[in-house]
Amino acid sequence: MLVPSLLLFFASCQNAGAPTAPAPTAGTGGGLASIMAERGLSEADVLAAAKTYTPTGKLDDYVIFGSGGHGGNIVVIGVPSMRILKYISVFGPEPWQGYGYGGLGDDVLYEQGKQGGKEITWGDVHHPNLSETGGEYDGNFLFLNDKANARVAVIDLKDFMTKQIVANPLVMSDHGGAFVTPNTDYVVETSQYAAPLGGKFATLDKYETEYRGAAVFWKFDKVKGRIDQENSWAIELPPYAQDLADAGKLVSDGYVFINSWNSEMSAGTEGKDKPFTESGASQNDMDYLHVIDWKKAETLVAAGKTTTINGIRVISLADAAAEHVLTFVGEPKSPHGCDVTPDGTAVVVGGKLDTHATIYDIAKMQDLIAKGTFTGKDKFGVDIMDFQASIRGQKELGLGPLHTVYDEKGFAYTSVFLDSTVVKWNWKNLEEPIEALGVQYNIGHITAAEGDTISPDGKYVVAMNKMSQDRYVNVGPLLPQSFQLIDISGPTMKVIYDMPIPLGEPHYSQMMKADKLHTITAYTPAGTNPYTDTKSEFAVASGEEKIVRNGKKVDVYMSVIRSHFTPDNIEVNEGDEVTLHLTSMEQALDQTHGFAIDMYNVNVSMEPGKYEEITFVADRAGVFPFYCTEFCSALHLEMMGYLLVKPNGA
Amino acid sequence: MLVPSLLLFFASCQNAGAPTAPAPTAGTGGGLASIMAERGLSEADVLAAAKTYTPTGKLDDYVIFGSGGHGGNIVVIGVPSMRILKYISVFGPEPWQGYGYGGLGDDVLYEQGKQGGKEITWGDVHHPNLSETGGEYDGNFLFLNDKANARVAVIDLKDFMTKQIVANPLVMSDHGGAFVTPNTDYVVETSQYAAPLGGKFATLDKYETEYRGAAVFWKFDKVKGRIDQENSWAIELPPYAQDLADAGKLVSDGYVFINSWNSEMSAGTEGKDKPFTESGASQNDMDYLHVIDWKKAETLVAAGKTTTINGIRVISLADAAAEHVLTFVGEPKSPHGCDVTPDGTAVVVGGKLDTHATIYDIAKMQDLIAKGTFTGKDKFGVDIMDFQASIRGQKELGLGPLHTVYDEKGFAYTSVFLDSTVVKWNWKNLEEPIEALGVQYNIGHITAAEGDTISPDGKYVVAMNKMSQDRYVNVGPLLPQSFQLIDISGPTMKVIYDMPIPLGEPHYSQMMKADKLHTITAYTPAGTNPYTDTKSEFAVASGEEKIVRNGKKVDVYMSVIRSHFTPDNIEVNEGDEVTLHLTSMEQALDQTHGFAIDMYNVNVSMEPGKYEEITFVADRAGVFPFYCTEFCSALHLEMMGYLLVKPNGA
Repeated sequence: MLVPSLLLFFASCQNAGAPTAPAPTAGTGGGLASIMAERGLSEADVLAAAKTYTPTGKLDDYVIFGSGGHGGNIVVIGVPSMRILKYISVFGPEPWQGYGYGGLGDDVLYEQGKQGGKEITWGDVHHPNLSETGGEYDGNFLFLNDKANARVAVIDLKDFMTKQIVANPLVMSDHGGAFVTPNTDYVVETSQYAAPLGGKFATLDKYETEYRGAAVFWKFDKVKGRIDQENSWAIELPPYAQDLADAGKLVSDGYVFINSWNSEMSAGTEGKDKPFTESGASQNDMDYLHVIDWKKAETLVAAGKTTTINGIRVISLADAAAEHVLTFVGEPKSPHGCDVTPDGTAVVVGGKLDTHATIYDIAKMQDLIAKGTFTGKDKFGVDIMDFQASIRGQKELGLGPLHTVYDEKGFAYTSVFLDSTVVKWNWKNLEEPIEALGVQYNIGHITAAEGDTISPDGKYVVAMNKMSQDRYVNVGPLLPQSFQLIDISGPTMKVIYDMPIPLGEPHYSQMMKADKLHTITAYTPAGTNPYTDTKSEFAVASGEEKIVRNGKKVDVYMSVIRSHFTPDNIEVNEGDEVTLHLTSMEQALDQTHGFAIDMYNVNVSMEPGKYEEITFVADRAGVFPFYCTEFCSALHLEMMGYLLVKPNGA
Repeated sequence: MLVPSLLLFFASCQNAGAPTAPAPTAGTGGGLASIMAERGLSEADVLAAAKTYTPTGKLDDYVIFGSGGHGGNIVVIGVPSMRILKYISVFGPEPWQGYGYGGLGDDVLYEQGKQGGKEITWGDVHHPNLSETGGEYDGNFLFLNDKANARVAVIDLKDFMTKQIVANPLVMSDHGGAFVTPNTDYVVETSQYAAPLGGKFATLDKYETEYRGAAVFWKFDKVKGRIDQENSWAIELPPYAQDLADAGKLVSDGYVFINSWNSEMSAGTEGKDKPFTESGASQNDMDYLHVIDWKKAETLVAAGKTTTINGIRVISLADAAAEHVLTFVGEPKSPHGCDVTPDGTAVVVGGKLDTHATIYDIAKMQDLIAKGTFTGKDKFGVDIMDFQASIRGQKELGLGPLHTVYDEKGFAYTSVFLDSTVVKWNWKNLEEPIEALGVQYNIGHITAAEGDTISPDGKYVVAMNKMSQDRYVNVGPLLPQSFQLIDISGPTMKVIYDMPIPLGEPHYSQMMKADKLHTITAYTPAGTNPYTDTKSEFAVASGEEKIVRNGKKVDVYMSVIRSHFTPDNIEVNEGDEVTLHLTSMEQALDQTHGFAIDMYNVNVSMEPGKYEEITFVADRAGVFPFYCTEFCSALHLEMMGYLLVKPNGA
């Protein structure tokens, strides 16, 4: 039975007529149908709106962590509303978060982030991976790679802050990373464009002999929440462009799979009469899926069968091949995605220049390796398994299948770039017909609810489209990418929301249940250093604020509380080295302040209870207001003070 | 009459029962009511969803340009979908846009942006203003201020890029800016925290005698699209904290109004036994609304009645007062917003620590000034008009009224911070009762469709709320702000959408009709330098790419087209100075590439047809891949090459 108010509601729809009727003059105060008419909405649009609209105060069910590509950041998106909840800065400075503008985060960004002694202030984030426990996302950490500068970062999901950057000492470019093993024992980072290991120089005519790739297994200390560089190690790889990677799980735990696309070892024109890499690397019919037995690799590392390069232990390619730490199996023509099925029994590889997805059977490969059944070796002595003996089958999906994600019912969803489709297919029954859904346009990656775990949720898939073109108001030659939320709960797939990505260029992303997060709302006790998770020895208690001078060194112990800084006037001499020790005395949710000094390029974010520390040389004389940069109260503008830098000789 | 499909649609709603009925097991494939039940949506929610949902391929009607606060950027939002269309970087580097990572934009960011010789790489953006022609947004330019470092920037809306940063040579902090006069003759920037003009030093005991504010009138060259610093000038102001500002229009064209909140001249504790600014500046019952006659000021400037400080001509406070370029009228206790009505006859001032909005009658003030009718002078000799004689009236709105915007029907909408309400009131008929709508929470600024023009559109108002707290999935101690879209087309206001701001902290924003934009899709002809709008002399034609060596200087003339760089291998010697001249040969919409060099902190965005130029010293020897960072095609990963830096002595 309809309740009276609902009857009235639908009556108002019906009175206003069909969507094609002219817009009523009553404005949008009317019923549903009049709004539909006015805004040109179809019935399907209204259903889609209802599936995604998240009313005030209601929370999203899922959270996407998307890579920001050459934005160097992470974009956090609520599902199904597709609202962006946060950008997290990682490889570049960002002042709203107070990251890279004088505070404690400078050490992560500018010191840990250095490569070869050079400060690097951006990154190209490709593949964020959530920490896992038992093959399930645990909501603790997020790892991500920087393709451009071969680095890996750790974000603590307790406070959504970047806590560590690790610079790869071997390779000059990465791609297949950061992927975690099912209990986050390792964060795996594999190379893309080959170069001499360790930053050495060699001309391109020595590509085959001197250029190499590597897979780095970064040991993760789950208690400290940091990568333990000392206990990490790597495996040398041939100079094929390693691409996507995934870790085995359940029955295949202990393996890592990496595909590659340059078995031709093209290095471009080399300034001579050779083809560009786009054609040079696209000639062979088959490339090599790398199968790595990392538990065996661990035993080699433990036995000392490594060489140390730039401080990291490396298993040589020869040893990796001889010990079957590394074996190969062919994969069709420049593959792209590499995705282990939820049950861990198979790896699906996308055939970028092929029309198929190929389903590798891990048990078959294990059996071939165990029995020593190979068809030959590559130029570097790596044993190659027979392609047909290794696979369950192939499935024709369209032009340019890339990445594959999974649902709870046994379906796979593959992004098909050239066709601009999401293709749904049954990876357990390859005879079943496919369903192809058009998306707008040129889908790259794809993500699914809890999609990389051992128990995907189904319900939602997101198409991550590279081209947006006519989808949004034109905001310049540099257009956003376009995400489309797809409802996969019904018998057929439906696009239910289009969202632009306004900053950065997402590649991979993962979608986790929102209730797996255990985010804090304040740093407790007040004065907690977020990088040590302990109260700073320099935190100050109310009433004990002070300025301590020692020659040309000035230490200011300052409290921060609505709506003042204590002390609020600081006098120093030109040339003094000043350290500000800031303690937020707040503990209430959302009671954040900022602290900026005009003209000194200083801005930090003072979340409730946070300790921050800023050191600078007062090298410009004058009068510099400092103030709260985060609107905190009715007297926010009044939350200010002065830094007075007395000129030399004055 | 209902068409059959719509009948079926509503039938499906009705069959599924009321919103309170249990969720059907059929999943979301069912009708509207089943989705409502499953997602807990009310009828009002569905209506709101239909008012905001923008189906795939349909464009938004309006575009908001919001300040990014201490994010230093601009956020562009589509209305009514409330999707973020783009972030535009302004005062800080951002690699996705290729801004600040080696390309032509470096000059704007790092050179033009310097203050006192210091590189400043962030900003605190408060008040973006769209360029106007005849008091209407014309869609050409966007201006914005940096409160922290007293700078103003110009964004060209042709390509949504920051084209100019101008550093204020007088003040150390700004706030009331960047406001334009009705034909964009001037971009006005006024100070906030007083300091000795021109960066001089003076201790706080000299606050009254040495500290000053200023209003800078930046002359805008509409043909060049740049601020013309030589033809700009300023007016010295007393050391009251100038706050918001607005330009007169129509009958009041020629005036600028600035409010202020520190007539007490508090400078905080001064290290002694004085109150913090929050209380020190909140003691007087009245502060001063600054009334500036800028057309009269122009005549003083033309007559040479100025002093030049740090290269800018300044009308002294004494002259400004004597000539009535500057007059005052009292305004109640620490006001905040300052908003001229669409017809230009009145200014509404928000009473931050008062419960009223005050409506000043500009004709009355003009009359008082013309007749020389004043009640006295302030300490600096500025004539003060009688408060009661200057106003039309006051309207009680609640606790903490801040900013006011307008619709087409004669209503004003004021943000009321402490009450967390948007208050609708009739500014032409103060007797009419108010309507207060609760928002979540602590609304700061507020914006309306075409709201700052002479012809507001009505329809939409956006509440820009400082606190989001329980509105979204918790993403850390640093929470987003929260925008709420309010439908003002009906008899009562309704919140119809909640959106989080995931990066930055918006203050002011403006909402323009989307069809006023005339954004380009490519730079034509190929090789166009976006900073000169002409084809670069260094642009290269296909087939003419080359590497030119001249001692230790290497110039590379490179073409960029799907999917290769020509040349793709560059050999230089350690220590060489390398300049890359990049020409995108593309012209198709959305065919953007990126260009990054690993480990060299270089990344530029190569939109279709763009010319870019990167100069660096090859100070690290080794093998450095360069590659396309914007996913451009199926062979995007193959769009790469190598920079080979031969070590010295090798």
